[in-house]
Amino acid sequence: MKFHHVGIVVHKISDKMPFMKDILKTNITTIPFHDKIQKVNVSFLKMGDFSIELIEPAEEITPITNFLAKRGEGIHHLAFEVDDIKEKVKELCNKGGKIICSPDLGFENRLISFVYLDAFPGKIIEIISKRPLKI
Amino acid sequence: MKFHHVGIVVHKISDKMPFMKDILKTNITTIPFHDKIQKVNVSFLKMGDFSIELIEPAEEITPITNFLAKRGEGIHHLAFEVDDIKEKVKELCNKGGKIICSPDLGFENRLISFVYLDAFPGKIIEIISKRPLKI
Repeated sequence: MKFHHVGIVVHKISDKMPFMKDILKTNITTIPFHDKIQKVNVSFLKMGDFSIELIEPAEEITPITNFLAKRGEGIHHLAFEVDDIKEKVKELCNKGGKIICSPDLGFENRLISFVYLDAFPGKIIEIISKRPLKI
Repeated sequence: MKFHHVGIVVHKISDKMPFMKDILKTNITTIPFHDKIQKVNVSFLKMGDFSIELIEPAEEITPITNFLAKRGEGIHHLAFEVDDIKEKVKELCNKGGKIICSPDLGFENRLISFVYLDAFPGKIIEIISKRPLKI
């Protein structure tokens, strides 16, 4: 299990990215990826081995709509890479987790899953398969 | 500027650490450090280059007391290392930041500072001097 990124919800990536790059002193970002399943766009900002994922809603009703309405822009989740995503999601469920989104195709053709784990501070964990799916 | 850790506020480190280690599959933690200035105890949990800092109140009224009362356990801040902490804090203030805690002695004899930056999603940024103070 390896840390992958901190997911940060914003209203609009193109509005926020220049400010983030300026504050964090990095120019390394990825082209926004449209995640059809999550109904969001995501773009990564990299500082060495560390990554921040900026997430914006791509439709009116999305999994981050409530978060934005209630708390505004902010840190939404921590994401970790694993070899076996199904096994890890099962483990988290056995430890009290509830699946928000079952493993499905996300950025870089990888399987991603979101689990709500009340006992985990931060509550939302994203699990990412280490290897992209071969399509 | 380099990422250092994600700061997570908890009620009690000793209650939460075993669960975090189990979920994140790591055994690498640091002995809790009592930060007299912040009135908290902190302990780091390491996953390769990534670190999570668990923070618990060490007194009744602390800088994290309101956070815990309002939001419960959760992600509190992102922390970054810099060569010149005073220069970085000054830069953040020029960009709208407000100092929560001026540079002062923290863990590993390093200077640490907290800045509230409303335009930064997550709001609270910790700045850490790269080198420990020679005492």
